[in-house]
Amino acid sequence: MTIAQAFYGTFVHAPTTKQLVFLKNTVLVLDRHGKIVSITPDQSLEQAQAAFRALENSKTTVLNDNQFFVPGYIDTHIHAPQYAYCGIGHDMPLLKWLNTLTFPQEAMFQDHHYARQVYTKAVARSLRNGTTAACWFATIHLEATKELVKAIQEQGQRAYIGKVNMNQNSPDILIETTAASIADTRAFIEYVQAVNRTMDPDSTSVSPPLIQPIITPRFALSCTSDLMIQLGKLSEEFKIPIQSHLCENLEEIDLTLSQFPNSTTYTGVYADHGLLKERTIMAHCVHMKDEEFKLMKDAGASISHCAGSNFNIKSGMADVRKMLDLDIKVGLGTDVAGGYSPSILDAIRTSRICSIARNPTQSLLIPELFYLATLGGAKVMGLGETIGSFEVGKDFDAVLVNTAVKNSPLDSFGRDTVQTKFEKYLFVGDDRNHERIFIQGREARLPE
Amino acid sequence: MTIAQAFYGTFVHAPTTKQLVFLKNTVLVLDRHGKIVSITPDQSLEQAQAAFRALENSKTTVLNDNQFFVPGYIDTHIHAPQYAYCGIGHDMPLLKWLNTLTFPQEAMFQDHHYARQVYTKAVARSLRNGTTAACWFATIHLEATKELVKAIQEQGQRAYIGKVNMNQNSPDILIETTAASIADTRAFIEYVQAVNRTMDPDSTSVSPPLIQPIITPRFALSCTSDLMIQLGKLSEEFKIPIQSHLCENLEEIDLTLSQFPNSTTYTGVYADHGLLKERTIMAHCVHMKDEEFKLMKDAGASISHCAGSNFNIKSGMADVRKMLDLDIKVGLGTDVAGGYSPSILDAIRTSRICSIARNPTQSLLIPELFYLATLGGAKVMGLGETIGSFEVGKDFDAVLVNTAVKNSPLDSFGRDTVQTKFEKYLFVGDDRNHERIFIQGREARLPE
Ligand SMILES: [Zn+2]
Ligand SMILES: [Zn+2]
Repeated sequence: MTIAQAFYGTFVHAPTTKQLVFLKNTVLVLDRHGKIVSITPDQSLEQAQAAFRALENSKTTVLNDNQFFVPGYIDTHIHAPQYAYCGIGHDMPLLKWLNTLTFPQEAMFQDHHYARQVYTKAVARSLRNGTTAACWFATIHLEATKELVKAIQEQGQRAYIGKVNMNQNSPDILIETTAASIADTRAFIEYVQAVNRTMDPDSTSVSPPLIQPIITPRFALSCTSDLMIQLGKLSEEFKIPIQSHLCENLEEIDLTLSQFPNSTTYTGVYADHGLLKERTIMAHCVHMKDEEFKLMKDAGASISHCAGSNFNIKSGMADVRKMLDLDIKVGLGTDVAGGYSPSILDAIRTSRICSIARNPTQSLLIPELFYLATLGGAKVMGLGETIGSFEVGKDFDAVLVNTAVKNSPLDSFGRDTVQTKFEKYLFVGDDRNHERIFIQGREARLPE
Repeated sequence: MTIAQAFYGTFVHAPTTKQLVFLKNTVLVLDRHGKIVSITPDQSLEQAQAAFRALENSKTTVLNDNQFFVPGYIDTHIHAPQYAYCGIGHDMPLLKWLNTLTFPQEAMFQDHHYARQVYTKAVARSLRNGTTAACWFATIHLEATKELVKAIQEQGQRAYIGKVNMNQNSPDILIETTAASIADTRAFIEYVQAVNRTMDPDSTSVSPPLIQPIITPRFALSCTSDLMIQLGKLSEEFKIPIQSHLCENLEEIDLTLSQFPNSTTYTGVYADHGLLKERTIMAHCVHMKDEEFKLMKDAGASISHCAGSNFNIKSGMADVRKMLDLDIKVGLGTDVAGGYSPSILDAIRTSRICSIARNPTQSLLIPELFYLATLGGAKVMGLGETIGSFEVGKDFDAVLVNTAVKNSPLDSFGRDTVQTKFEKYLFVGDDRNHERIFIQGREARLPE
C-alpha cells in the first residue's frame, strides 16, 4: 500500500444521528487511491511530525487552529438545468413558474453547447459549496446529459447523473416517445460505463467509479405505466439506482392517483411499476400516509428532504422527525431551482427551521442535521460504507474548512474553541470557508 | 448647492409594499451633504455623459450591466455584544443559552477594551452586509456603550445606540441601581450629543446627526415600574426614541403579567409606564392580542420583525401580514445573536419562509419583503422622510450591488436581465455582492 497523503488536525463528523464527534489532534493517512488507511487521535504535534517522517514521499498537511475537516456534503436532489434560473420567479404561482421558466429553459438543452455552459457553472457552484457527491437530474436530452457527465468528470465531483424520462403530461417540446426514452436511457448508461472504462482501463480501481448513471423518471405523472415498467427493468439489468419525486404537493397527489387508478397510494404507483427498491431515492415526501412510509421502509428506499424547495414552492413541511423515528434513510437535497440555494450548509439551516416550524419541541438537533447532510446522504446514495464520515477504509471525500479565511463571513474571538468555530461555521459560514475540497483524496478541479 | 457626486445606472427600490421599481438608465445626483438633488430616469449614455459634464468638480460613476443600487438595508433590532457568540449554542434550551452565553458574555463588557474589539467587528459585519442604519442594543455599561458609539462613528453607519437598562430579575452582575441606571443613561445621551456637536461644531448640517441615543429598557421584566417611568421621561426630555422587546414568547408574557398586575396586557405594561410612543420600536411581537396591536397602532409605535431569531429560539412565528393589514409600521431585525445571521438579506429570506410556514396563501411577496428591509425599516426608525428609498431630498444611503463581482455567490447567464439579476441577488447573493456602501453619500469606512 502506497501512502499518498496525511493530515494532522481536527476532523468533525456525525457517525450517528446522536453524535457530533470532534477528532482532535488527529493524524489521518490516505493511500494513493484516496482511501483512509489510519486515523489516530490525540497526537502531539511532535508525534504527528514523527508519523509524517515515517511516511516517505507523501504530502503532509498540518491544520491550524482555525481549520478543521468535515465530510463532504451530499446533495441528494438537484436539477442541473434549473441552475440557469436559480433564484428567479419566486413570486409566481407554480404553474406559471413551470410554464414561463422551467419548461422553456429545459427545452433549451436540446443545444448541448448551451448545456455545457450551464452545467459547468452548476457543478462548480455545487462543489464550491462543499458538495462532494450529488444526485443530478439533467433533462430528457441525451447529448446534453453527456455534457453534464463531462462537466462533472472534469471537476472531479462524485455523482449520480440521470437523463430524465418524460413521455406524457408535459409540454410537446419535452415529450419523448417511449421507445426513444428507453433507447436514450440505455445509450446514456452505456456512455457512462464507457467513460468509466476509459478512466480505469485496467480495472485496477478498488472503489466504485465516481460517476454512475441513475434511472430518472421525472415523476409518475410524466411517465406512462409502460415506460415506468421498462425503466424498472433497466435499473435491474444494470444494477443502477433510481430517483424521482414523491408526494411533493397535494394537487400532484390527486392527479397521480387519478392517472393511476390501480394503485392505492402515490408511493404505491412507483412500487407497482417496479421502481421502489433499495436503490431508490425519492425527493420531498411531504404528504405521506403511514402506509406509504411503510412501503418506503419495507423497500429500503430513501428520501431526499428538500426543505428550501418545499418552503419556496409552498409545498408543505416534511416530517423528518418521523422519517428518522421510522428508521427510513433520509438525506438533504437543495432541489435547485425549486430551492434557490445550491448549498447544503443552507439546507441544514432551512431543514432546522422547517423542523421548528412543524413542531418546536421535536426540532432537529445539530448532530442530526449534520448527519443528514453527510452520512445520512451517503446512505441515501447507497454509499454509507464508502463516504459520509471519517472511518478507516472509506474514501476521503472531505472539505477543509477555514473559519479565518480572508473575507470570511464569520468572526472569531478569544474564547472560541474548535467546537464554537464549527458552530459559527455551521450557522454563519459559507463557501468562502471551504478552503480545499477533496473527493477520493483528490482536490476538486474548479474552473477559473 | 454644490454637487458632489453623480451616478448613472439602475436603482431598485420599493416605494410602497406593492411596488418594486427599477429606475433604469437613471442619472442620480447628490449634493455635498449626501442628499439626492435629482433623479432622471431613461437617459441614454450620451445624455448621462452630457449631464455629468455639466456637473463640474463632481465624482461621476457609470454602472455596468451587472451593477445596480439598492437602498441601504435597515436592521431595526441587533445586540452588539452578542455578536461575539453569533451562531453558538443553538441546541441549548433558552435558559441555558442565557445563563452560559448571554449573561456571562454581557458581563464581560465591563471591560471597555473588550467591548471595543467586539463592537468594531460587529459594526463592520453589519455594514458589510449592507446595513446602513441599525438600532443597536449595547449592555448596561456606560463606558462600553461609548465604545460602540466610537466604532459606529469611525465606520460611518447611521445608528440608534442604546445603553441597556436592567434593575431587576437579572444576574447580580448585570443589575444596576435605579439611580445609576438613570444617571448613566443621561450621561450616555449627553455623551452622544457632545460627540455630534464635535462632528458639526457650527450646526451647519442640514440633516439630523447620523448617531442618536435610544432609550433601551431590556424588557419590562428587567425593569421596575419606577425605572420605566423615569426612562419614559428621559425620552420626552430629549425627544429620543425607545426600543425594547415585546411578546417574544409565551412564558415571558405570563411572567410579565404577573410582575405587573395593574396592566391588562404586556403591551399595556409599556403603555402604562409612558414607553409606548410614536418613537417606540418593539422587537418580536410574536404573540399579540388584537387589543395589543390596537395599542401599538394608536400609539404609532413600530415593530421589528425578527424571523430568524424567532425560529432559532423557538419563540413562534409573528403575523407580519396582519401587521401590514393593520398599517402598523414594521421593519426587519436580525436580533443577533438570538438570530445567527447579521444580514438583512438573510432576514428577507427567513421572513418569507416564516410567512409561508404560517400561511402559504398569505405569504409575503418580494416587493413587501424588500420594502420591509428598506423603507419599512426607515419608517420604524422615524426616518421615512430621510432614507429607505431613492427620492429627491432624501439622504443617499445605498448599496452598490455587483452580481458579477469576483467570487460572486451567483452566476448569470445570457438571458438574465437587471430584474432577474436583482432576484438572484435577493435570494442567492450575499455581502460579496456589496461593492460599495454609502451613508449620506459617503462610503463606509470598514476596518482592514
Ligand atoms: Zn426536484
Ligand atoms: Zn433582542
